[in-house]
Amino acid sequence: MFSPQPLRNGETPSPHPRISAPHFHSTLSAQKLRRFNSLILLLRLLAFCFSLSSSIFTLTNSGGPGSPSWRDFDAFRYVFAANAIVAVYSLLEVTASAWEVLKSATIFPEVLQVWFDFGHDQIFAYLLLSAGSAATALAQTLREGGDTCGSYSAFCLQSDIAIALGFLGFLFLGFTSLLSGYRVVCFVINGSRFHL
Amino acid sequence: MFSPQPLRNGETPSPHPRISAPHFHSTLSAQKLRRFNSLILLLRLLAFCFSLSSSIFTLTNSGGPGSPSWRDFDAFRYVFAANAIVAVYSLLEVTASAWEVLKSATIFPEVLQVWFDFGHDQIFAYLLLSAGSAATALAQTLREGGDTCGSYSAFCLQSDIAIALGFLGFLFLGFTSLLSGYRVVCFVINGSRFHL
Repeated sequence: MFSPQPLRNGETPSPHPRISAPHFHSTLSAQKLRRFNSLILLLRLLAFCFSLSSSIFTLTNSGGPGSPSWRDFDAFRYVFAANAIVAVYSLLEVTASAWEVLKSATIFPEVLQVWFDFGHDQIFAYLLLSAGSAATALAQTLREGGDTCGSYSAFCLQSDIAIALGFLGFLFLGFTSLLSGYRVVCFVINGSRFHL
Repeated sequence: MFSPQPLRNGETPSPHPRISAPHFHSTLSAQKLRRFNSLILLLRLLAFCFSLSSSIFTLTNSGGPGSPSWRDFDAFRYVFAANAIVAVYSLLEVTASAWEVLKSATIFPEVLQVWFDFGHDQIFAYLLLSAGSAATALAQTLREGGDTCGSYSAFCLQSDIAIALGFLGFLFLGFTSLLSGYRVVCFVINGSRFHL
């Protein structure tokens, strides 16, 4: 049975369609894969929006001379750096996901793409959580210990919002990591099956 | 070809050995599996030791009346709780791993065991990292901002040691999570293959 072969690993389309089992490349499977990739795209877009917002909220959290600035606190600098890194990464991944949804092909070779996505999702989820936790501890100390939050409540409020946005970014990146982990498992299984 | 069937899913040994492909249940595979499980056991043991030490170091970090106590700081209470939970979990998992190495069988049904291990490894790794990051931010604030570390340097030193031990626990739990993730993938593949 001949079926349209989706492009894999940046392959150029072959003039001779290969014979394949209907089970793997049916229209139903292609539709499911498309829906799955669209969900990943949506989650990556949300992770991008929240991490970008968090980094912007942190970056603009400075009330001018005399008032505290986010640059004075290591944990807030950590939040900014982590969220900025994740925003850049998410933007690249949004492009890759959109490409995959539109062209049904991965930008990099498939094996590299699935492992790259999963590995980086995991590492960056850890990074965001770590930054968020550190900043939460600092924000709580500022609120309880000193008079920073008494005199400059806007600074503390903006910090809280930035931290919350970062945690939301972590949440969506964590969900994406689950899906990209599932993709790795699927690839490992299908990869083995193609060799059978 | 008949081969000794390792016990799976808490099965009782069958008087009629089943016919199986030599590829899966060869002595070499059994040896490899044993070595792999021993490595997991070692990592779990290390994670247990470090998280237990971290929780004990935190718990005993109180210099009596007048001096600061770990109970006064939310982040240190978080470190204690997270490490104590991970220590209990790791102890249970050490028992399960030792059972698996000795008896070549999982305590729970295999599908439950591999997913339980991987899921909990992931969640508890996130928990330890989060607690460690929060406590690091607090410890740094104490060191820079107030006179707590000037007057009570032993308190700060012990906090730092507890945090470092917690991070080491996270490191070993993270490695274990990679291996238990690999086990899930192997199980998914083999599980499918048993149905073929």
